[in-house]
Amino acid sequence: MIVIIQCRDQIGLVADISRLMADTGLNIVSMREHVDNAEAMFFMRLDVDGRSDEFSLTTELLKILPEGADVHVNPVPDKRIVVMVTKEYHCLADILIRNNFGTLGASVACVIGNHSLLQKICERFEIPFHLVPYEDSGRNSEMEIIQLIGSYDPDYVVLAKFMRILSPDFVAHFPNKIINIHHSFLPAFAGANPYKQAFQRGVKLIGATAHFVTDDLDEGPIIAQQIIPVNHSFTAVDMVKSGKEIETAVLAKALRLVFSDRVFVQGNKTVVFE
Amino acid sequence: MIVIIQCRDQIGLVADISRLMADTGLNIVSMREHVDNAEAMFFMRLDVDGRSDEFSLTTELLKILPEGADVHVNPVPDKRIVVMVTKEYHCLADILIRNNFGTLGASVACVIGNHSLLQKICERFEIPFHLVPYEDSGRNSEMEIIQLIGSYDPDYVVLAKFMRILSPDFVAHFPNKIINIHHSFLPAFAGANPYKQAFQRGVKLIGATAHFVTDDLDEGPIIAQQIIPVNHSFTAVDMVKSGKEIETAVLAKALRLVFSDRVFVQGNKTVVFE
Amino acid sequence: MIVIIQCRDQIGLVADISRLMADTGLNIVSMREHVDNAEAMFFMRLDVDGRSDEFSLTTELLKILPEGADVHVNPVPDKRIVVMVTKEYHCLADILIRNNFGTLGASVACVIGNHSLLQKICERFEIPFHLVPYEDSGRNSEMEIIQLIGSYDPDYVVLAKFMRILSPDFVAHFPNKIINIHHSFLPAFAGANPYKQAFQRGVKLIGATAHFVTDDLDEGPIIAQQIIPVNHSFTAVDMVKSGKEIETAVLAKALRLVFSDRVFVQGNKTVVFE
Amino acid sequence: MIVIIQCRDQIGLVADISRLMADTGLNIVSMREHVDNAEAMFFMRLDVDGRSDEFSLTTELLKILPEGADVHVNPVPDKRIVVMVTKEYHCLADILIRNNFGTLGASVACVIGNHSLLQKICERFEIPFHLVPYEDSGRNSEMEIIQLIGSYDPDYVVLAKFMRILSPDFVAHFPNKIINIHHSFLPAFAGANPYKQAFQRGVKLIGATAHFVTDDLDEGPIIAQQIIPVNHSFTAVDMVKSGKEIETAVLAKALRLVFSDRVFVQGNKTVVFE
Repeated sequence: MIVIIQCRDQIGLVADISRLMADTGLNIVSMREHVDNAEAMFFMRLDVDGRSDEFSLTTELLKILPEGADVHVNPVPDKRIVVMVTKEYHCLADILIRNNFGTLGASVACVIGNHSLLQKICERFEIPFHLVPYEDSGRNSEMEIIQLIGSYDPDYVVLAKFMRILSPDFVAHFPNKIINIHHSFLPAFAGANPYKQAFQRGVKLIGATAHFVTDDLDEGPIIAQQIIPVNHSFTAVDMVKSGKEIETAVLAKALRLVFSDRVFVQGNKTVVFE
Repeated sequence: MIVIIQCRDQIGLVADISRLMADTGLNIVSMREHVDNAEAMFFMRLDVDGRSDEFSLTTELLKILPEGADVHVNPVPDKRIVVMVTKEYHCLADILIRNNFGTLGASVACVIGNHSLLQKICERFEIPFHLVPYEDSGRNSEMEIIQLIGSYDPDYVVLAKFMRILSPDFVAHFPNKIINIHHSFLPAFAGANPYKQAFQRGVKLIGATAHFVTDDLDEGPIIAQQIIPVNHSFTAVDMVKSGKEIETAVLAKALRLVFSDRVFVQGNKTVVFE
Repeated sequence: MIVIIQCRDQIGLVADISRLMADTGLNIVSMREHVDNAEAMFFMRLDVDGRSDEFSLTTELLKILPEGADVHVNPVPDKRIVVMVTKEYHCLADILIRNNFGTLGASVACVIGNHSLLQKICERFEIPFHLVPYEDSGRNSEMEIIQLIGSYDPDYVVLAKFMRILSPDFVAHFPNKIINIHHSFLPAFAGANPYKQAFQRGVKLIGATAHFVTDDLDEGPIIAQQIIPVNHSFTAVDMVKSGKEIETAVLAKALRLVFSDRVFVQGNKTVVFE
Repeated sequence: MIVIIQCRDQIGLVADISRLMADTGLNIVSMREHVDNAEAMFFMRLDVDGRSDEFSLTTELLKILPEGADVHVNPVPDKRIVVMVTKEYHCLADILIRNNFGTLGASVACVIGNHSLLQKICERFEIPFHLVPYEDSGRNSEMEIIQLIGSYDPDYVVLAKFMRILSPDFVAHFPNKIINIHHSFLPAFAGANPYKQAFQRGVKLIGATAHFVTDDLDEGPIIAQQIIPVNHSFTAVDMVKSGKEIETAVLAKALRLVFSDRVFVQGNKTVVFE
């Protein structure tokens, strides 16, 4: 069983929680905890051996934790996701493959695209594909997408190279549930065309950032980042090509972490128990 | 205060230990624990806030832990080391610099060299340098070095590119106290001339390994490893040169981990709470 | 146009070759060259702009190069490969995806498996799958596979986690044409079960190696290698899981390099113009 | 001999240059070239075997190259540098060590500090240290430093964690000669306190950038960059500490590249033949 706790910090929390586990006959296989001193917040992820009723364990935990504690015992074992795409296949294909072989840690309920280019690959894997072309304003398209997503009731929405900016209104429908892959090592090169920006600046490394989406474009809590070296011989197009590899890898890592309940959001940051 | 525990595993250890800390008025700043299931061993490193008598805290801990437990409260705050070298300066110089500016986490008691080449750099930093040239057998030299080291009574002996093989008899004097930097990513290229071996094999990466020294040459518990990429344009000499950078970095990391009491030895492996 | 040259070294080669290009009206976009001094061999890869007859350019080059020179102008623009697999999907799926979207740099003619587990994924991509189960000796199976491969006449055979050892006789049929992904940073942990070996040795990094297959098991010329860090908390099973990611990435990189004619084999080593 | 060429691109340059080398009896050991298509600029670094008069070779090269070509044969074999520091020792100490053992690729003429903290380490290595405390305006201090540097006539000025912003007037005295180490992966976190910015943004990697200094603060041509991973457990102070290691490594790499004449500046970018 996995136990997830996020609450105000207080003395003796670790002792109280681990005592409760022992008393319930649960053996702690691994315990990860973090205290954010500035915010006085406590984060814990427990991997325990043994069987216990999920509801009663949650109830017992809430009794010993500070008011307002966020507790999840075996949080959503069978997660479902909706994936949104535009034209680039690399992140989507990686997700579909893992989904197909049961190693994604979640199941793909459907794919929504604003272009039809990736419909075929979804069909190969028998995953529903919904085409929602964007009109100029994008407002009606967003409404349609919100309804579509709602009909699948997913745990997370994954933007796998969805190249339209979502409105605050859209984001508000899925707080801390939208995961995006941005093609730069944020906060460098936020906004459009990061590889072109990187080329013009003459950087010696490019990167990718997976983050939760908030109202502030490219400013949401970062889950994972990584970089690869580049040099003067790279054109902007070469950077795009090399970038795809790192984008795929970083998004895969972020999804693995989120789907195994290792990521906590606190304000504009994450606590990640890798 | 730092608390280090290594003992047989049993249910409820985390609860018992964290309860004792709370009861003693100690706040757990960070807790790292690991269970080696195959060996049924438990490892814990606690960083706690608050003041308590070291002796009585150790006594209380031993009461609640399984027999034979290894407990250290604030283990040797002012560690002393002896460094052994031959001709290459890079690892020694890095140690002397950190020692000079108080960021090594230990103090260098003396340097022992089997060549005089590095005497001058020790003098620049006012560190005693002892020249012990090796005779053919090496036996008498080892005896002399053992006595020398004994006179300084160090916590660790660091082989910073000491290019002679130490006898099992020598090693037996300092169990789990000798740290070596080997110039390959072990177990690849154990033994002599690893860069020449790497060149001849045509590998695309070379590395370095910091490990505790045991009777089995290059087979002791590994503390840290890292690699750097190479390619066909590297001669064996280029690899030696590039290798020095990674050797220096890996040894520095291993020393930082050991000196901050983050490394446990279990059989032929280490548990490292980075 | 791409021009590939491998020959005995002699003075003035670069001048002679670049003069011929200029005289033929070909502009050199990029020139990579390497001299292996020990073997006195010269390697060059040219990327040139302009049009010229491939046959006559080859003839002109052979006139100015030392006897026995190996010259290829636009070497096999449409490469075909046969992929051999056992049960693990990760490397195969990555190849199928890139093949599907036209970014592999080669086309997959068929997949041969000694288990049927990966038949379905091949069908999804409409790629022929041939099941050749291994009998105890493996001798007849190898004969069947050799014939199968022959019928497709591929440029390369890719062992994408094919878990049977191929006989020298098999290898002799496809010299420097078989590419394997080995699940360790060779020469560490050659042979079977490298992750188990890695776990038992307590290494702090694991890796993968893509190499050409020769008679000597795990001793062929290395094309690409990479590693990822691990620690005491990794079981052998965790290492296998993490290893899959790096295996996929390293094989993808090796294939990209080979398929874009950037890899030369010289004895037991490679020259790679990345 | 090392030959460095930077000029307008034109067809046949490689052929003409390599022919001249062959005619002069010089054997090309390694040739690196790059064409910046957007700027139509040609860059070449030759490593040649054999002896020739430097002046006459330069003259012959200028005859065959486009007007305005920049040619250097054996550019400044014994480079001299002035190092500027404030309080942090790590970059300076690394430079002093390499200087002491003759592996820096340049010699340190003197160190200028705006604090006295690093005077002692310079004395240990018998390197002149000049204290130039900054007054409020900094204007007079800059004047004094410009005169001091002038008296040593160095090839490069290295800002090894010099924590004052230099005026455009200062920079104008040493065009493309001032090398700075910035403690972030630029362009992320330009300006003051990058680690604090990185902490507040919750990034998962921090880095360092070595660059030439221009009028635009933190906007000069980048020579080298690298990053290290961080996580939620890092305070801003931990980031500073980890950052020092990468700052030292990146500056060391940049100096090695510049001092071995592998770095060309073109506008706001560099071409680096590693």
